[in-house]
Amino acid sequence: MDALDRLIDLALDEDLGAAGDVTTVALVPPSARGRAELVTKEEMVFAGAEAFARVFHRLEPGASVEFRVVDGAQLAAGALVASVSASLRTLLAGERTALNLVQRMCGIATLAAKAQEAVRGTRCRVLDTRKTSPGMRALSKLAVRAGGAFNHRFGLSDGVLIKDNHLVAMGGDIREALRLAREKAPRLVKVELEVTDVNQLEDAIAGGADVVLLDNMNDAQVAEAVRRVHGRLQLEVSGGVTLERLPKLAALGVDFVSLGALTHSARAMDLSLELLPA
Amino acid sequence: MDALDRLIDLALDEDLGAAGDVTTVALVPPSARGRAELVTKEEMVFAGAEAFARVFHRLEPGASVEFRVVDGAQLAAGALVASVSASLRTLLAGERTALNLVQRMCGIATLAAKAQEAVRGTRCRVLDTRKTSPGMRALSKLAVRAGGAFNHRFGLSDGVLIKDNHLVAMGGDIREALRLAREKAPRLVKVELEVTDVNQLEDAIAGGADVVLLDNMNDAQVAEAVRRVHGRLQLEVSGGVTLERLPKLAALGVDFVSLGALTHSARAMDLSLELLPA
Amino acid sequence: MDALDRLIDLALDEDLGAAGDVTTVALVPPSARGRAELVTKEEMVFAGAEAFARVFHRLEPGASVEFRVVDGAQLAAGALVASVSASLRTLLAGERTALNLVQRMCGIATLAAKAQEAVRGTRCRVLDTRKTSPGMRALSKLAVRAGGAFNHRFGLSDGVLIKDNHLVAMGGDIREALRLAREKAPRLVKVELEVTDVNQLEDAIAGGADVVLLDNMNDAQVAEAVRRVHGRLQLEVSGGVTLERLPKLAALGVDFVSLGALTHSARAMDLSLELLPA
Amino acid sequence: MDALDRLIDLALDEDLGAAGDVTTVALVPPSARGRAELVTKEEMVFAGAEAFARVFHRLEPGASVEFRVVDGAQLAAGALVASVSASLRTLLAGERTALNLVQRMCGIATLAAKAQEAVRGTRCRVLDTRKTSPGMRALSKLAVRAGGAFNHRFGLSDGVLIKDNHLVAMGGDIREALRLAREKAPRLVKVELEVTDVNQLEDAIAGGADVVLLDNMNDAQVAEAVRRVHGRLQLEVSGGVTLERLPKLAALGVDFVSLGALTHSARAMDLSLELLPA
Amino acid sequence: MDALDRLIDLALDEDLGAAGDVTTVALVPPSARGRAELVTKEEMVFAGAEAFARVFHRLEPGASVEFRVVDGAQLAAGALVASVSASLRTLLAGERTALNLVQRMCGIATLAAKAQEAVRGTRCRVLDTRKTSPGMRALSKLAVRAGGAFNHRFGLSDGVLIKDNHLVAMGGDIREALRLAREKAPRLVKVELEVTDVNQLEDAIAGGADVVLLDNMNDAQVAEAVRRVHGRLQLEVSGGVTLERLPKLAALGVDFVSLGALTHSARAMDLSLELLPA
Amino acid sequence: MDALDRLIDLALDEDLGAAGDVTTVALVPPSARGRAELVTKEEMVFAGAEAFARVFHRLEPGASVEFRVVDGAQLAAGALVASVSASLRTLLAGERTALNLVQRMCGIATLAAKAQEAVRGTRCRVLDTRKTSPGMRALSKLAVRAGGAFNHRFGLSDGVLIKDNHLVAMGGDIREALRLAREKAPRLVKVELEVTDVNQLEDAIAGGADVVLLDNMNDAQVAEAVRRVHGRLQLEVSGGVTLERLPKLAALGVDFVSLGALTHSARAMDLSLELLPA
Repeated sequence: MDALDRLIDLALDEDLGAAGDVTTVALVPPSARGRAELVTKEEMVFAGAEAFARVFHRLEPGASVEFRVVDGAQLAAGALVASVSASLRTLLAGERTALNLVQRMCGIATLAAKAQEAVRGTRCRVLDTRKTSPGMRALSKLAVRAGGAFNHRFGLSDGVLIKDNHLVAMGGDIREALRLAREKAPRLVKVELEVTDVNQLEDAIAGGADVVLLDNMNDAQVAEAVRRVHGRLQLEVSGGVTLERLPKLAALGVDFVSLGALTHSARAMDLSLELLPA
Repeated sequence: MDALDRLIDLALDEDLGAAGDVTTVALVPPSARGRAELVTKEEMVFAGAEAFARVFHRLEPGASVEFRVVDGAQLAAGALVASVSASLRTLLAGERTALNLVQRMCGIATLAAKAQEAVRGTRCRVLDTRKTSPGMRALSKLAVRAGGAFNHRFGLSDGVLIKDNHLVAMGGDIREALRLAREKAPRLVKVELEVTDVNQLEDAIAGGADVVLLDNMNDAQVAEAVRRVHGRLQLEVSGGVTLERLPKLAALGVDFVSLGALTHSARAMDLSLELLPA
Repeated sequence: MDALDRLIDLALDEDLGAAGDVTTVALVPPSARGRAELVTKEEMVFAGAEAFARVFHRLEPGASVEFRVVDGAQLAAGALVASVSASLRTLLAGERTALNLVQRMCGIATLAAKAQEAVRGTRCRVLDTRKTSPGMRALSKLAVRAGGAFNHRFGLSDGVLIKDNHLVAMGGDIREALRLAREKAPRLVKVELEVTDVNQLEDAIAGGADVVLLDNMNDAQVAEAVRRVHGRLQLEVSGGVTLERLPKLAALGVDFVSLGALTHSARAMDLSLELLPA
Repeated sequence: MDALDRLIDLALDEDLGAAGDVTTVALVPPSARGRAELVTKEEMVFAGAEAFARVFHRLEPGASVEFRVVDGAQLAAGALVASVSASLRTLLAGERTALNLVQRMCGIATLAAKAQEAVRGTRCRVLDTRKTSPGMRALSKLAVRAGGAFNHRFGLSDGVLIKDNHLVAMGGDIREALRLAREKAPRLVKVELEVTDVNQLEDAIAGGADVVLLDNMNDAQVAEAVRRVHGRLQLEVSGGVTLERLPKLAALGVDFVSLGALTHSARAMDLSLELLPA
Repeated sequence: MDALDRLIDLALDEDLGAAGDVTTVALVPPSARGRAELVTKEEMVFAGAEAFARVFHRLEPGASVEFRVVDGAQLAAGALVASVSASLRTLLAGERTALNLVQRMCGIATLAAKAQEAVRGTRCRVLDTRKTSPGMRALSKLAVRAGGAFNHRFGLSDGVLIKDNHLVAMGGDIREALRLAREKAPRLVKVELEVTDVNQLEDAIAGGADVVLLDNMNDAQVAEAVRRVHGRLQLEVSGGVTLERLPKLAALGVDFVSLGALTHSARAMDLSLELLPA
Repeated sequence: MDALDRLIDLALDEDLGAAGDVTTVALVPPSARGRAELVTKEEMVFAGAEAFARVFHRLEPGASVEFRVVDGAQLAAGALVASVSASLRTLLAGERTALNLVQRMCGIATLAAKAQEAVRGTRCRVLDTRKTSPGMRALSKLAVRAGGAFNHRFGLSDGVLIKDNHLVAMGGDIREALRLAREKAPRLVKVELEVTDVNQLEDAIAGGADVVLLDNMNDAQVAEAVRRVHGRLQLEVSGGVTLERLPKLAALGVDFVSLGALTHSARAMDLSLELLPA
């Protein structure tokens, strides 16, 4: 059972409980079948087709879910996104869980698109972070890509990122930290170092960091970092970044800007599932 | 394994993968122990003590997590919320997952507090909805209560709520729907009916609904509904509700106003976990 | 994976172990297919079609299970209930688990039918309780409905039922208990109070109980309770109830009588699965 | 997670749902602690100490459960069986699940004791079957032993039992079936053959069966089988056995009598969990 | 979910992580389909068809896996074993996990065939042990049978085997140990006793052991044991057994020789999965 | 539940079944406690302390497991590795599973040590592969490190490795494959390319590969590759590598040599768990 199934099962369990959908069981016979349409209620970048479909397939393997659009599509309000044919009980029992997933993913994709748009014409890429809703890591990262932005590490195992807390934990020697990381980590992951002071950049370069994260620096500090590094490693800006500040940061020549808000504070988009009369 | 453990396991699995935290494993010996503090970075209503602690206990059953505040506390920026003592590897591996949970819960509690404050002095109660992040239903409902607002149904099994889609599914006869619900549902759940037109209120009363949900009505329609019902059942307003509109709705005399935004669009609050030097 | 699948997996695991059905593996080639019939060996009300079918589908998704009757059917001995086509190994490996489920469910349905029949012509309804075999809550409740009786709460979350132990736990003040329950429980659950003395009825009514459970009262006490309440709330009788006493209790005018024996002591009905010669 | 934990989790999940015990959460503060006693309400053979304790430990690892009696004890009505100290919420949330387990196990143990008593003074042993409540196989078998009776196979993997359906499946040649079983099954399991006609006994002996199950035979047939076999293999009687018939069967000299009713139709014993005032 | 699915899920989880196959996701569109062939790279006895197929079905239920050979087939190098049609992403993501399973199973089957061949013409049977790779018990036992050798106990529940550590644990009295085992174990399992000294054989026979395991004995001791037992029970040799010694042991007249190396030290066979150009 | 617990549960389930350890249950009372020692029976590099201990803690959380050595220790035959104190039932039930884990891990560590020793004095590092026993990925990689060798990718998500099958799947253009990988993969993973012909090296360098895997090349080809690359990227040799060939390959100046045999064909080391008399 993959992570998406685990999340959907968890969501269905918390919504249905062991007793199930008491309203639908009381009102709708088990044999009745129906059709419903997923429609947008506002403008958005769409994401979440697989997650949406999976909810209904989890409840009824033979349910039919047909999408008119793909992840990444720019949609107007009122657009028909998908239609679902299944037993009425499946449609009604799965509606809320499916919407909860897709509304959040569209929110992330829409915000990611705005952010990447803000750096258009530069080589800067907008990255997500690990600040995702628990259980929604893969879906959140997928939505970011649907919006045209890019993924940072997926988790703690596909990249080394040495942060302030790591330096506190091992005594603070940057070069030793970089040496250990390069010696002990699996061979195909890169090593990134978080710095809070541009004077740490020499250690980063000497220690062989692949990427440096400039944490909570103002524009002048970022500019200074770009100047000092001079292309010897990649630079990422993180902390205190807003949509408004993005063009300025990109113009300074950094490789990446990461925004936690893409995944931790995107507003849910409005979509609804409308049952068609028989 | 309860639902919270399932969510935490899912979150830890997606963050740690099978390979684990490669940074920490490279830099920090397994026997090293440490202490970290959870502190607020902005003003908020706190929620999520149990979820936060559970993450560390899941990684290390003997970890010590001590809270200085309880769910529902109103905190200033810079407040010390909790301190955690555990192996350094546990602290570093659990940090992001624990923060992802608590930052969202504090966001919900803070918004719920604002919403309930907006109806202070009336008998109106602000309710949440089922529009929660998948897997976070119980935590979201807990955060709503921590903020001083109230819970609507937990899920599909602890209450009957007959919505538009149900009426479409069974042919649209309100009284028959209410009769079936009262006949077939378990004996201790109430029956709520969603209406989109005040003219449906007579059927609701005659059919024995316990609560009526007024869906997407304007203030005049809500006032008319209150007048017609005259206390014979409880009234809930839902749809198109903002913090600004809440006092007006409460003044009209409705029993409940429900807001999906409490749980689907609350901004994550800023808290951080800071490792103390040895 | 829903609760029924979890129960079936548990049952198959305990029966098959990791080594599987050593008899069948030794005697029957994996490619051999067969057909078997489920037949009654005594008169009964049938229940359990979905559970029976699910066992074989769990072992072999493509197995065909066709029912001649539906849950709730009154059957004579020797009736053909269903026929199953699958690999012989599936038929032989699933036989016992499928029968264990359906024999118990038919036992409950048959007893529930007798109980509801005993109150025919009155408005009294026979209810089940939570005294179900662990893991079989939903199946037991389904069997009760198949027999024509009714469901009390499904579990601890779809209704408030304040019992003696709760009053002991919080100090015994009935009105305060009712106030707390109405204030804090989700909005769509009703509140029931267990009373052991008719003098507690005034507190129940004043505190806003929706239902009162008369615990272990004799007929005179029940009659007195009906008289005092006079329709202001619903009354349920529980404890010391036998099939013989049911008509008397119904005649006294109570709304519900609940019987633990429906689910905790129903005798298993006799059905068998007979393999047809090739 | 072992099978008992899986069953208890399933039972707690179905009782608590994702929303939990709404009554207790409303009435009892999380920090309140209490003590409760498990007492018998009728005479019985006790069984189920571990299962009962495990429920509370599953909810609260630090709960204290102290037993005054062990499995197999013969108890009068009103006996104190165990006392439990835990948070009040744990006591109230676990009560029903713990009782549902132990009431069924005591029912089985009590019936098993009556059955084994009925063959006292003979070498006949009363055996259980696989007709157990789904998920309760191990607990049911344990209860049978607590009552002083004996266990047949645990499941399909710890013994070969060739039944009528197997012979139908592979064409009906008893000697070939026995040969295959002895050739292919793991080396440490015995081979039992079900026969419906005493004339099949010669094939059973010649084929090397270790045990023969005499299915649904009357006393004369059983006596004839004992005479013909003359100790060359063990004999088990099954089908149509009642407590009344047991002494007669034992006197005929069979080795085993198996009763499905021990586990499929034992009445639940009456025990209750009583909260002590603070 | 059966044990094989659990193992495959565990293997896929550890290989794919939550982030999935980043190479394939980057290079291959989700809609592209392909075909691959499983071919041998050396001579072997094949085993593992079901496990191999299951990996691809787990990733994509509609994948087609067609085998040209069955378990137990003797194959030359370069033989086409199976062809798989599925999405390219499925083929690439499942390749390593499927090969890891089948390469080990073929290694076991090939070694088992050599071992059983070494005792050809005698009544001696080569048995496996419980020294299997964790999670691969059933697959390892299946591979042993595919190679033509035989299975000892599957696990701890389908046979009693009293070893040295058990005697240490209960004080060392062989007859008492055998008595307890026969009295308390389920009725259809045999009782085997491990002996390290031929003088223990009398106790084994008197105590009613079905099988005796001669542990780490030299040829002279084994011969003496065969002489003393004289067919009154079955004899198994274990410990210090090599392929070279097998014929000698078989010639001495023992019933079984068990080899841990069959499953704990078989070399993985070389097979590869080759994608066919579109 | 982490991956190690899942593997151990799977191993315990397959060994214990639902019926448990019938030998131990028959012979040893549940309250008896004991002590056992893990000792080596041959020379080895030890690995697996955590896995070994976890088995006993899984069966009995309060079991005490004390190690005298750490992973990576070089041990003679007869060395005392650890002592375990627990209930006798735990010791006997967990013995085989714990040994099955640790014997394999020691086998891998011992072989890894030999391999890394063979390249001593060069900058070449011996790497493992993903050819691990299903479910044992993390344990196998840990054992490799214990032996002093190094880890390649953990799985499919912590590094891009473009193999022959990927090129077949996407049409064979190396530069396009490298471009896609760099564009779409998460930011902190490196990109490795498998080449079978030294003429592909220019594309690898031009396309920005971080590492090149030289597949099944002879010494002359490897030397030519080293010459052509001239340090512009890292080189790994894989396929057809034996312990004997390692020094030669290292001397040619490659960065890494990977050996599947480290994890797919290491012989299990001999260790035993000996119960101490009370």
